[in-house]
Amino acid sequence: MAVVMYDLVGKDDRRFSPNCWRSRMALAHKGIAAEARPTRFGEIKAIGDGVCRTIPVIEDGGRRIVDSWAIAEHLEATYPDGPSLFGGPGGRALTRFVLHWTTQTLHPGVAPLIIHDIYEHLQPEDRDYFRESREKMFKRPLAEVQAGREERVDGFRKSLGPLRATVKEQPFLGGEHPLYADYIAFGAFQWVRVVSPFPLLEADDPVRSWVDRCLDLHGGIARTTPAYD
Amino acid sequence: MAVVMYDLVGKDDRRFSPNCWRSRMALAHKGIAAEARPTRFGEIKAIGDGVCRTIPVIEDGGRRIVDSWAIAEHLEATYPDGPSLFGGPGGRALTRFVLHWTTQTLHPGVAPLIIHDIYEHLQPEDRDYFRESREKMFKRPLAEVQAGREERVDGFRKSLGPLRATVKEQPFLGGEHPLYADYIAFGAFQWVRVVSPFPLLEADDPVRSWVDRCLDLHGGIARTTPAYD
Repeated sequence: MAVVMYDLVGKDDRRFSPNCWRSRMALAHKGIAAEARPTRFGEIKAIGDGVCRTIPVIEDGGRRIVDSWAIAEHLEATYPDGPSLFGGPGGRALTRFVLHWTTQTLHPGVAPLIIHDIYEHLQPEDRDYFRESREKMFKRPLAEVQAGREERVDGFRKSLGPLRATVKEQPFLGGEHPLYADYIAFGAFQWVRVVSPFPLLEADDPVRSWVDRCLDLHGGIARTTPAYD
Repeated sequence: MAVVMYDLVGKDDRRFSPNCWRSRMALAHKGIAAEARPTRFGEIKAIGDGVCRTIPVIEDGGRRIVDSWAIAEHLEATYPDGPSLFGGPGGRALTRFVLHWTTQTLHPGVAPLIIHDIYEHLQPEDRDYFRESREKMFKRPLAEVQAGREERVDGFRKSLGPLRATVKEQPFLGGEHPLYADYIAFGAFQWVRVVSPFPLLEADDPVRSWVDRCLDLHGGIARTTPAYD
């Protein structure tokens, strides 16, 4: 039985969720054939027994695993013969640091730059939920949150310093080959390119070259999905 | 022949260099008996053949190794029987990310909070060099750079988010046990406590508990050095 992954989807098959991309890339990394089942925000509560509030969720051999980190740990434990997602115990521990940097620096930097673009790429049924929940977070209309991003993007680019310096000196955060830490950070950039024409990175940014390398991985699954560049 | 490490020193045997602390902790981690030889800024050029411009520098079996990262790699390769500094290839690669985060976020956050305190803890012969070189960097008198730190420290504390979140959920960045990544980040906190009475962290900050755990390591070598708390 193939693994099923519930994958957030907007209109025109836009797979925009950064956290879902982590899991899709992790599945591909392990060489696992998985069905990435398109799932709207409004359909999440219909998964399985109805307790899931977020995706990604995977179903694997009768088990249901919720949350991208739990999925990565499940894959590492269940498929030890595939390439490691962590590269050893030190890699696993330090991946938590990359995760928290992504949660606290990278995602809060990206979200205000594309939040209205995300809204515009949702299916009509999901739009009210998204607008209301996100306007509660930002305390402003989404178009206003996004406005002026051309002026703010420089600050965002500066915040990428630790990522930039690392992928300038080695092909991936994981070293010569990608690890799950790469997929954690990569998800944020894929989030942008799937829903937004906004030029997030300068052409000669080493981060952009690393994103390109990630897009080439695993038969180009991230590159060939509907997106802007 | 014991390993010799040239260790930056101020007055009253204050060992304040964050980068030297990385190497001292790494040597202790590997269980290597090392002489941490006190060295003033002005004495660095007298090491060996006179080409060293920074310390730490170690001398080990007739080889001289310059730069804290090169020292860590040397120790990992030369003493494979001691506990690993990286915890595997993934750990080694991701330690680079922690290093760049420390260089780009942690150290630039710490330095302006204690730069005049460092000056005041130097031996007289080193003071002019330090003041001139650092005032060139900051483009202001060191006392002015440091002034108002009580108001600025909140921003610094916020910048520790990824470190805080990680050491809240596991004892060390390296997981259950410390790795070189811990020593990289720890050096910044040791830098402060050796030269400054300034309360850098709030009492209930998980980062402070992690610093305490680091101070307990390896017979408490970092705790028992002359310092403020």
